[in-house]
Amino acid sequence: MSAKFAIGLDYGTNSVRTLIVNVANGKEVATAVWEYAHGHHGVILARDPNLARQHPADYLEGAEITVKKALALAKKTVRGFNAADVIGIGVDTTGSTPLPVDGNGIPLAFDKKFAKNPAAMAWLWKDHTGVAEAAEITELAKKIRPQYLAKCGGTYSSEWFFSKILHCLRSAPEVFDAAHTWVECADWIPAMLTGTEAPDKLVVGVCAAGHKAMYNDTWGGYPDAEFLGQLDPKLGALRSRLCAKAHAIDRAVGKLTAEWAKRTGLPAGIPVAVGAFDAHLGGVGSGIAPGTLVKIIGTSTCDMMVVPVGQQLADVPGLCGIVNGSILPGFYGLEAGQSAVGDIFNWFVNYIQPMGKAGSHEALTAGAAKLKPGESGLLALDWNNGNRTILVDQRLTGLLLGQTLYTTPAEIYRALIEATAFGAMTIINRFEEYGVKVEQIVNCGGIAEKNPLVMQIYADVTGRPMKVSRSAQTCALGAAIAGAVVAGAYPDYASAQKAMTGIKPRVFQPKAEAHAVYKELYVLYRKLHDALGTKDWNGNLFDVMKQLIEVRGRVRK
Amino acid sequence: MSAKFAIGLDYGTNSVRTLIVNVANGKEVATAVWEYAHGHHGVILARDPNLARQHPADYLEGAEITVKKALALAKKTVRGFNAADVIGIGVDTTGSTPLPVDGNGIPLAFDKKFAKNPAAMAWLWKDHTGVAEAAEITELAKKIRPQYLAKCGGTYSSEWFFSKILHCLRSAPEVFDAAHTWVECADWIPAMLTGTEAPDKLVVGVCAAGHKAMYNDTWGGYPDAEFLGQLDPKLGALRSRLCAKAHAIDRAVGKLTAEWAKRTGLPAGIPVAVGAFDAHLGGVGSGIAPGTLVKIIGTSTCDMMVVPVGQQLADVPGLCGIVNGSILPGFYGLEAGQSAVGDIFNWFVNYIQPMGKAGSHEALTAGAAKLKPGESGLLALDWNNGNRTILVDQRLTGLLLGQTLYTTPAEIYRALIEATAFGAMTIINRFEEYGVKVEQIVNCGGIAEKNPLVMQIYADVTGRPMKVSRSAQTCALGAAIAGAVVAGAYPDYASAQKAMTGIKPRVFQPKAEAHAVYKELYVLYRKLHDALGTKDWNGNLFDVMKQLIEVRGRVRK
Repeated sequence: MSAKFAIGLDYGTNSVRTLIVNVANGKEVATAVWEYAHGHHGVILARDPNLARQHPADYLEGAEITVKKALALAKKTVRGFNAADVIGIGVDTTGSTPLPVDGNGIPLAFDKKFAKNPAAMAWLWKDHTGVAEAAEITELAKKIRPQYLAKCGGTYSSEWFFSKILHCLRSAPEVFDAAHTWVECADWIPAMLTGTEAPDKLVVGVCAAGHKAMYNDTWGGYPDAEFLGQLDPKLGALRSRLCAKAHAIDRAVGKLTAEWAKRTGLPAGIPVAVGAFDAHLGGVGSGIAPGTLVKIIGTSTCDMMVVPVGQQLADVPGLCGIVNGSILPGFYGLEAGQSAVGDIFNWFVNYIQPMGKAGSHEALTAGAAKLKPGESGLLALDWNNGNRTILVDQRLTGLLLGQTLYTTPAEIYRALIEATAFGAMTIINRFEEYGVKVEQIVNCGGIAEKNPLVMQIYADVTGRPMKVSRSAQTCALGAAIAGAVVAGAYPDYASAQKAMTGIKPRVFQPKAEAHAVYKELYVLYRKLHDALGTKDWNGNLFDVMKQLIEVRGRVRK
Repeated sequence: MSAKFAIGLDYGTNSVRTLIVNVANGKEVATAVWEYAHGHHGVILARDPNLARQHPADYLEGAEITVKKALALAKKTVRGFNAADVIGIGVDTTGSTPLPVDGNGIPLAFDKKFAKNPAAMAWLWKDHTGVAEAAEITELAKKIRPQYLAKCGGTYSSEWFFSKILHCLRSAPEVFDAAHTWVECADWIPAMLTGTEAPDKLVVGVCAAGHKAMYNDTWGGYPDAEFLGQLDPKLGALRSRLCAKAHAIDRAVGKLTAEWAKRTGLPAGIPVAVGAFDAHLGGVGSGIAPGTLVKIIGTSTCDMMVVPVGQQLADVPGLCGIVNGSILPGFYGLEAGQSAVGDIFNWFVNYIQPMGKAGSHEALTAGAAKLKPGESGLLALDWNNGNRTILVDQRLTGLLLGQTLYTTPAEIYRALIEATAFGAMTIINRFEEYGVKVEQIVNCGGIAEKNPLVMQIYADVTGRPMKVSRSAQTCALGAAIAGAVVAGAYPDYASAQKAMTGIKPRVFQPKAEAHAVYKELYVLYRKLHDALGTKDWNGNLFDVMKQLIEVRGRVRK
């Protein structure tokens, strides 16, 4: 019997990736990447720095190019590989990345009339043009629908579905009026692949709907028409043109069309799973399960956990979202995150450029690795891009404390790493304070892959082993697992994950001596965190610098 | 009638300078500098980073070399100049820089037995080996002689006279035992030039004694033998070998000896004024008078004011010293200061090296000059080397707050300048809170000379005009003025200063718009200052980052 394969289609900010995975063991047999053709590295920009769009044509072209290329590569490198042995497809994308479509589900961007209108494109996750609308939505929800906010951390973001649509309504009414409805990129791609893009056939995922569009079955799906209508009557009218029901990833949206089979070389009729966001399928690809915290660490982090539906679960404050089925079917998906991690290190290297060209990430990491915890006397807050969890506050900024006349760039670099570790610790504590026990931590993403010092510091700060996902492309792997499950290769996600995911042999164990020092420093971090980040803290910081000096003196001896 | 001249001998950390000044108008006619021969740039170092010594032989060789060179230069460049027209000499030095001497007033360092023993050298102002002894002295004074501390800011420093002597007693008893007594460098040089170094002839200045050795006429001079004896009986015994009386700079310690006349080419018998510290004579050379704050801005600052003796004056808390006659005879000398100013900018440029070689002081200043107050959203504390005034606390460190993912080195550089300006403002406020009105501010020193941006920011932050002293070498000029006064060229310092000092034509006027923003930022600076620097502050810092963001947004519009 020949091996069976599943495909993960992973749509990132700048490029799309196809990953072909052996369904039996998760072995990644071929991968192909294509950078989107439109815009700057795939992102359409404008004079307004808040604007970031993508052209949906790139999504289709990218699927065709990368699937073909990956299949060709697999044929070349895997003995006996046959495209006919691909049994299912999963799709993950960035989000919230909604796009306006016409009455047939076709993007307005494909209409000549709107071909150059950025409002008709896909509104990329990091588009912040809807800042005012986000505030307006938050204000209204606080007043009349507080339950909507309780599930998304208390603040509706400018990055999310309705902020973008409302901003389009206000700033480009001709596009809003021409649109029949709006579809998340994560839903639109599976629909196009399966010919289910028409509104009456469209199947949407609960990951995007639940985390970014206030969808919740307990209040009947999307926010009600009265609420949306108070923002704008036209938005209220849109409510009836949104799907009534959103689904988890154990369902197929349809089967690959003959046309797409021809375009890609895949067998027609194989199932395509409900789409989900990259981070959430990254969680699946990292083996997420109750008790397992999956951290995707890149420019920012996404921290995910799942809790079985039925188990008691509080509205954990400060989380980005708690959504039934958003990661795994049958489980609440809990999403937390840090607004910047790699971005902070990148800022220091690229904007400050310490020591000029000599101050690379590698050189600073090497210098930082030589230091002991507490040796520099420095303490930083990881808020250069605000704080997502647990404060849910973008109006926060970075802080560095403890500088002397001899403080070095490597010391600062290490302090910045430590700050992100303290931020990670704060998220773990928040989960556990609300009864969600963290039994193991699996890391993935670029930084987890490439920087052992970061992993060791995270272990030492948290006092917990840091595991790293075996796969270097967990999002695409998670998507492929979804493809395998909807194809029936496994009865459920648990068995699919057991067979197809794993961790690397090297586990970063916490060192007792380092952890003891970091426990002291975390008390000081938390003091600064609360003093500058919360309204209700009251106290004095006289001991912060003194204790850092005391620890520094002790460690240097 | 030929012009008359006075000489200022200015002993710095690395070198000595001779300045020849026209007594009639303060014109600086010739100058010569010589770097000390011993140690690293004149400073003898050891494995202990706290140790910093000088060899007293350098003081003598330096006087001979620079006086001869300056005279030769004057002869070459000033028509009709004659060394015989030099009528007096003043001396300023660093301090507290005490050295152990034998029964004839000769430094132990000149004894073969001690020629290589650093304990027998001059203990340079920045020698911190006596940290433990300083704490011990402070503790004892708090208990039994609180009045001693009230005049020196509440804490006795490791940089000061008795900390060093007590540390020598403990760590190098053979040197302590061999010493008849200890003499400040500022007193020893005038004594050697006039042959008055023998203990029975020695005349000491009240500047060093009052600011660094707890000398005060109201309690009978130096600390009493009982107090010193409780620290160590041998220190108690030393008390009787210290001078009974210390003097202001309107008195000559003696006349230039025939030997020194021969060594230098100066006329024998001209008077040499009582020595004082560089900053204090810098105040004189900048035209200090009641109501005038003189700021000497270099690696650190010294902020000086004078108040007429007889006028009511509180013990201003946080000052480094309040000493009768330490700057001008007949006035209390008030000394405040910032532990680091130029040193902070140097740290950023030399240790962090932002943008590598492109990050020079000049380039960063140019970038910072393009920014508006509040535009960066940054706020810093100027504590990288602790805080001298008003907190008198070395156990403080730097802080930078407000960083985003786009913060630039020029923004940080400007924030560091602003932090030192806020520190300067805090000192001005402290003077005025205690009834010492600041009517004008005269700046001098390298940074005041060279960086107009710093001066403009100081004007904008304080809302006061910043004047800059006409002389680029105010310490040496002040010493020369002392030489002129003790030679009888003027009846008093006021008339000498009127004739011999002045300010530059360019005065930095505060800009109303900038000052309005800085007033807002100063409230936030002061909040951080008090929260981290004082025990009694109680509150919350939630508004600090928010308000910086608010100001940033407003300014950028």
